[in-house]
Parts: sequence; structure tokens; C-alpha cells
Amino acid sequence: MTTLSTDVYKQLAELNITLPPVSVPAAAYVPYVQTGNLIFLSGNIARKDGQAWVGQLGKNITLDEGKAAARVVAIGLVGTLHAAMAAKGKTLNDVTRIVKVMSLVNSTADFTDHHLVTNGASELLGQVFGPVVGAHARSAFGVAQLPMGACVEIEMIVELA
Amino acid sequence: MTTLSTDVYKQLAELNITLPPVSVPAAAYVPYVQTGNLIFLSGNIARKDGQAWVGQLGKNITLDEGKAAARVVAIGLVGTLHAAMAAKGKTLNDVTRIVKVMSLVNSTADFTDHHLVTNGASELLGQVFGPVVGAHARSAFGVAQLPMGACVEIEMIVELA
Amino acid sequence: MTTLSTDVYKQLAELNITLPPVSVPAAAYVPYVQTGNLIFLSGNIARKDGQAWVGQLGKNITLDEGKAAARVVAIGLVGTLHAAMAAKGKTLNDVTRIVKVMSLVNSTADFTDHHLVTNGASELLGQVFGPVVGAHARSAFGVAQLPMGACVEIEMIVELA
Repeated sequence: MTTLSTDVYKQLAELNITLPPVSVPAAAYVPYVQTGNLIFLSGNIARKDGQAWVGQLGKNITLDEGKAAARVVAIGLVGTLHAAMAAKGKTLNDVTRIVKVMSLVNSTADFTDHHLVTNGASELLGQVFGPVVGAHARSAFGVAQLPMGACVEIEMIVELA
Repeated sequence: MTTLSTDVYKQLAELNITLPPVSVPAAAYVPYVQTGNLIFLSGNIARKDGQAWVGQLGKNITLDEGKAAARVVAIGLVGTLHAAMAAKGKTLNDVTRIVKVMSLVNSTADFTDHHLVTNGASELLGQVFGPVVGAHARSAFGVAQLPMGACVEIEMIVELA
Repeated sequence: MTTLSTDVYKQLAELNITLPPVSVPAAAYVPYVQTGNLIFLSGNIARKDGQAWVGQLGKNITLDEGKAAARVVAIGLVGTLHAAMAAKGKTLNDVTRIVKVMSLVNSTADFTDHHLVTNGASELLGQVFGPVVGAHARSAFGVAQLPMGACVEIEMIVELA
């Protein structure tokens, strides 16, 4: 880490964020795969009190709740990423770029603010990794339904040193 | 291939799987693209008797049928991957990792078992490539509809030696 | 650029296409991220007269309109790609492969021609980059809804020299 970089753990502490442990996949896959200097993180669904955060934007989840759910998913992904880095003898400060975020918003046919919901995740990543490392490409869109009825699911591609 | 690795073709034979030929894209794109040591496989829809396997989970396709459809798609992707490797003078035993699976499940608004449907593909990949090479990151979610009305569509990113 | 390659700017001129400036993200992310020799372009929604091109296939957008919208999105992505290359002192002629396209079609539950809609983008990429560089892997599917009600959203992965 150069002296000009953001210290990710200091940022997490300032945001009062305690990283959760790696979310155990609900099925026959793994939380992440590294290939070259990229880590592909599996789609994580929003959880609340250890259960799927069930609901649909435009129906029974407000924009603010959706944004909060997206933020929670991003924190979970950072937790998984921390574990992935630790397994290589590295830390979150060795992340060189959040490359790409794909955000799936469980929404009705008349809800069109998927980008604002997803900002809950994007802004968290910017706060934690800083404006350079945290600046990512992104796609966000509405889906008919998500595993276990969750309101948001997000996957991420990350570059490490 | 090291002696500790899974022999993919032996696994396929034990599972009584005959790989299909490369699925010809229904449109203006190609079945796969290699960049560096990654192969990006196009989304393949489920097919039955040479036609799109039409239907929707939660409506007229059961969970077991959906899982079977996901397995069929995965077999088709392995067939395309075999052809991709052969074009480089390589075999499926030169695949070093199934990196990422994205699974789109055509489902109603009240179906929430996309992860279980997708296990049909993930488990097949684990059986064929073994627990190390076959362990992949994954996202699965419900979509409003798929090309030609298919019940499942899956795309895959693969790493080769 | 070898003499056998397609000159992208000549192709654009022949197609009477003026590249738009980089589309400013509607939210907390960036238009593209480069990692190694890959550029991940954010999902771009279809726009018309500077506004989101609102509508749904199967409801109030015809197949031809959807194809035209997909073409417009692809032109916008090429505009962003031009800016990305220029920022590195390169041009679109240094693009070595359009690797992967993901196309999200805002569609009703009974619309099944997402692949034909997406051809509006795929054919444009083939015309602009030629049959070798422009040949890409692809996934296309129907989504419940898109940011700002747009009818099509497309993201792209590109390889450069």
C-alpha cells in the first residue's frame, strides 16, 4: 500500500462496519474464484438477521430499504473479499480495483429506480476503497424474482495486486 | 494433466454423457471467445429434442424438470468447451478452472428456488471436472422471459492452462 | 493495425455514424474500468433525444424499434470505448476483440425474441469492427424492468492490444 492509498480497514472502522464472515453458498458453488489477478465473487443475496431479506421494490420494499439492502450486500461481499485476500496472505489494502458490479433488483414491472437502489452498494464501495480503487463499472436491472425471495442480489469482479 | 486430476472424459463416460456438437447461435454472435487464458461461453438456452425447452418455473415446469434442464444446458456448454479446446489442440483436461456460471431461470414472480434449479448445472460441472477444477463462482436469478421461451439459460467463464 | 484489419473509423463513416460522447452514469459508478488488457463497460440504457428510451417489448415497443434501440446502445458503447482508448493514447483500431455482450431486454412475459432485438447491437458491432474483431460471445434475456424504464440495456467486455 502506498501512503496515498485509502486504508480500507481504517475506513471500515470509521463507518462502524464489522465485516461478516464469508456467506456460505446456499447451493453447489463457492463464494469466489480467483483467476490471474481477478477475483469473481458469487452473487450474494441481501440478508437480515441471518435470513434472506425478502421483498420486492415497487411492492413491499421502499427505495430507502432497497438501498440499505444493497449496502448490506456490499458489506457482505467485502467480508468475503477480506477472507479471499487473507487466504492468499493478503489484505483488502491489496485490492487494486473494484472492476465490475452487477446488481439484480427484485422489482415490479413499474419500478424504475434500480440504479438508485444499487447506489447503496456503489457508495459503500467508494467509501471503503476510496474514489480510485472503489470506482467501478456497473450494470443494474430489475429481475422477476431472486433466490429465496431476496430483494437484492449483487455479484462483483475485483482486481488485486 | 497431473495424475491427481480428474480425467474429464472418463467422468463423462461414467455419467453416460455424450457431448453434443457446438450449439449454433440463433443470432449474430459466436459460441465462445477466448481472451488470454479465459474462455467466455455465450448463454445457452435449454433444448429438448433439438427445440427450445419451453416453459416457466412456477407455472408449467417443476423444480425437478428445471434442474434437469439446467443439467442439459451445462452438458451443452461442456460440448462447446470441448470444441473450443480442440480448436487450440487441447482437451477438456486442460481446463484449469470453471470460473463463473450465470444462470437465468425463466420464472414466475412467486418462484424462489432459482438456486436449486441451477444446482442441476453446478452439480454436473462438479461431477465432470472434479471438486477443484469444477468449483465455480455463481449467480442465479429469475428473469421475466428467455429467448424462444426457454426455461433456463446459462453462460460460463472458464480458465485454461 | 495490420493492413488486413478493418479500419473502424472508416466503417463508422460509411455507416454515417457519429460517435456520441461518453454517457455520464446516472449514479455512483464509472463508464468503464480497464483491468489488464480487458475493458469492462458499464451497462448503458437506450436513449432517444437525450432521454431514456422508455418502453417494453411485447407491450409498446415493436421488434424493429427494439432492434433500433439495441443498435443505438451499441453505438453509445463504441463512443465510450473510443474515449477509453483515447485516454490511453490509443484508438478503436487497437481493439483486438469484442469479447462479450450482455443484453437486457425489458419485456413482457410473453415476448421471446430477445435474441432478435439484441441482433441490433451485435450486427452493428460486426459492421464496425469487422467479422473477426467484432465476433463476440453473448447472452440476451428478458428482464422485469430497467433503470428509468428503458427498453434495452447492454454491457460489454472488450480486449485491447
